[in-house]
Amino acid sequence: MNLDIRIDVSRARDAAVGREHGITRAELDKLQPRVSDAHAILQRERAEGQYGFWDLYKQSGVFDDVKAAAARFAQKGYDNLVVLGIGGSSLGTIALGAALLSPYHNLLSKGGRKGAPRLFVMDNIDPTVFREMMRICPPKKTLYNVISKSGGTAETMSQLMIVVDAIEKKLGSGAMKDHVVVTTNPRRSDAPPSLLHPVADEYGLTEFAVPLNVGGRFSVFSPVGMFPAAMLGMDLDAIRNGCAAMDQRCADADLKSNPAYLRAAIQYLADVNKGKSISVMLAYANGLYSIADWYRQLWAESLGKRYSLDGEEVFAGQTPVKALGATDQHSQIQLYREGPNDKLINTLETRKFARTLRIPPTLTSIAQLEYLRGASMNKLMAAELQGTLDALRLSQRPVSRIILPQINAHTVAQVLYLLEVETAMAGRLYNVNTFDQPGVEEGKKIARKLMGGEG
Amino acid sequence: MNLDIRIDVSRARDAAVGREHGITRAELDKLQPRVSDAHAILQRERAEGQYGFWDLYKQSGVFDDVKAAAARFAQKGYDNLVVLGIGGSSLGTIALGAALLSPYHNLLSKGGRKGAPRLFVMDNIDPTVFREMMRICPPKKTLYNVISKSGGTAETMSQLMIVVDAIEKKLGSGAMKDHVVVTTNPRRSDAPPSLLHPVADEYGLTEFAVPLNVGGRFSVFSPVGMFPAAMLGMDLDAIRNGCAAMDQRCADADLKSNPAYLRAAIQYLADVNKGKSISVMLAYANGLYSIADWYRQLWAESLGKRYSLDGEEVFAGQTPVKALGATDQHSQIQLYREGPNDKLINTLETRKFARTLRIPPTLTSIAQLEYLRGASMNKLMAAELQGTLDALRLSQRPVSRIILPQINAHTVAQVLYLLEVETAMAGRLYNVNTFDQPGVEEGKKIARKLMGGEG
Repeated sequence: MNLDIRIDVSRARDAAVGREHGITRAELDKLQPRVSDAHAILQRERAEGQYGFWDLYKQSGVFDDVKAAAARFAQKGYDNLVVLGIGGSSLGTIALGAALLSPYHNLLSKGGRKGAPRLFVMDNIDPTVFREMMRICPPKKTLYNVISKSGGTAETMSQLMIVVDAIEKKLGSGAMKDHVVVTTNPRRSDAPPSLLHPVADEYGLTEFAVPLNVGGRFSVFSPVGMFPAAMLGMDLDAIRNGCAAMDQRCADADLKSNPAYLRAAIQYLADVNKGKSISVMLAYANGLYSIADWYRQLWAESLGKRYSLDGEEVFAGQTPVKALGATDQHSQIQLYREGPNDKLINTLETRKFARTLRIPPTLTSIAQLEYLRGASMNKLMAAELQGTLDALRLSQRPVSRIILPQINAHTVAQVLYLLEVETAMAGRLYNVNTFDQPGVEEGKKIARKLMGGEG
Repeated sequence: MNLDIRIDVSRARDAAVGREHGITRAELDKLQPRVSDAHAILQRERAEGQYGFWDLYKQSGVFDDVKAAAARFAQKGYDNLVVLGIGGSSLGTIALGAALLSPYHNLLSKGGRKGAPRLFVMDNIDPTVFREMMRICPPKKTLYNVISKSGGTAETMSQLMIVVDAIEKKLGSGAMKDHVVVTTNPRRSDAPPSLLHPVADEYGLTEFAVPLNVGGRFSVFSPVGMFPAAMLGMDLDAIRNGCAAMDQRCADADLKSNPAYLRAAIQYLADVNKGKSISVMLAYANGLYSIADWYRQLWAESLGKRYSLDGEEVFAGQTPVKALGATDQHSQIQLYREGPNDKLINTLETRKFARTLRIPPTLTSIAQLEYLRGASMNKLMAAELQGTLDALRLSQRPVSRIILPQINAHTVAQVLYLLEVETAMAGRLYNVNTFDQPGVEEGKKIARKLMGGEG
């Protein structure tokens, strides 16, 4: 079976939604030279190792280490894996968990989970939530993976301080090494030292490095995402193969053959030429919905920039929005069809669900339900998707589709890798620094001052 | 303790973010006559019973029925409450559940849940999810509340057909009345008959009515939201009192005193005069985050309209976006500060969390964490919120705040009621039909045809 995901931008083209809202061949042709130039720059940056996300999947040694550590910790039979991390340290794991675990993973018995621990991703500092998590995940039964590149993330470090206290009080300091795994900056003379290094040293913790040239939002295929994935029993080899397959498909500069560049071009042109300032990601499967949250960070932080690379004030960036079909047909589709035509809608679809669910021939006294009897919920979902696609076209709303043959580690990895490359290209087209986030510092400084620390 | 929620629009005003992005006194004064006219119309419509959401909280008899039925079913000790419903039939319950139940309600023991059942809101037709829900919620231990005004909602009825089959096979038809509760259109000669009426008749089911003059997205205080709330042990009297308190605060037309109208005016002027086409709802508490999903439907379906009430083509409607603090400081704030200044950010804040969580003095070898030691996670959350508010102001981004003294049934009801009244006023200001949703029909028709039914 062919496991390649399929990209279909035809419904974002002028033939589908008209020239006012759809991208024309001429617009794509005109953009090709800029894409080719950008491709050359991206290739050079990649070759020089300036940005490392492209090649994370190739690091066999890292994957071996991750697998070995996970196997070692798995033997201890933890009930819970608690990830302490925010933003890029959590969104990849949330996305992979939602896509690849059972939808009610944490409610299943250990057997139902195939021995994998329950997953708690603590990506906020809501005291009610964190306290409750501490109550239902006793340290003895729990492995904590603390993830922060700098070790200075206030949210994550405050969580860790609470966890350390609980472990020391209940199990003793000596137990720390069996319950805490650190993922942080590498120990290199040219790397900024992480505050987590002395913690790891003090307690003898297992430690993974996030490569220096990989930012948080591009780190899912580093140990940031891969150690939790391994602990949860995900197929890391399938993930690597998915990355490799997509890397290969994104190898050349031609918009006709490179799916990531084509998608980037469509999104960029939709924004700049057609006023689509909003990029909706509309998943038609609950398991794919959290990918939209991961994408929200990737797209917003990478492209939402005040200054261009030339120092010009541009206030760039589409606003990413997450949506779920069929659910949001009863919430957002009214606006998407009849409101301002300011959106490019990116669907995330699957041709096949893991389960087929027949609609049995019940409620036979109601003639109006005859069309459902004997059909499947799968068929109904597909029909709703098709109905939405066609209704959006009738309203001249452009749609760019990502279609998975099925949802598994291999296909989901392709999607994430595709979106990373797409973002890298989009950053070049917007002419902004894809990889920084200067706008988040000010709020952190103010918060730190309010806490009595230095700004 | 004063339990009134507080509305603060000062950071959306020109004094805070400048005249280009902030609303001026002159703009508000100029809008007052239109608000007053709209108020008169809304009051008349309310008095005439054209729209019923305003007065749902007053229906003592309905609340008594709901409570009595919930008490009766509670005696049977179900482990699970499964709501079958989509859009307005589910979003209120999801919002109330997230705000008022323990954050890990479904993972707690029955004692930990104070005897309340686990909650599963089935608001989609993902076959993998539905099948898994059926597996972990055996019919014998489960009460299903099927909610559809017309009884014709394909998603909900297909779910019901599967549930009926399971009940009949495992427990027999006679058990239906102990396991299924129907919420649907009233039985009145002037009401469109619901397909759920014959189902209720055939099996002798308990049935609740949604008043004819209440649309799905305005139905949370009808049995649509209140029967699940009662089953989950929520305080319906506190909810009613919260509605009453807010109703009273929204009684007159003056923008200086009516919080719902003031918020509506700010949002409308921000969109129409200042180009804020995106309405972000940024919750600073996990429990308040799902209110943003409920609001997404309310705002999008009510205001996202192609035609004005005068038949003019307007393509109106802000796009609602949900966000969560502090989490999204590491995902969306970069864009909100440095991207296009096209957003009005509505915060949902709480002054107090149900739990206080001290950050213990651990990791003492790391001097840089001194500012966290001995503080509380609550204080950190408050500092992060303040930091974000101030950083947004520095970037001239308007913010309109809703501040709860604490999160409970009384305050959350105030918020929902406030937003309903705000939406009703906003619809008048946009001059659109707040209460219809013509744009969702086309997709439904196409889907139905694809299923072999009539379009």
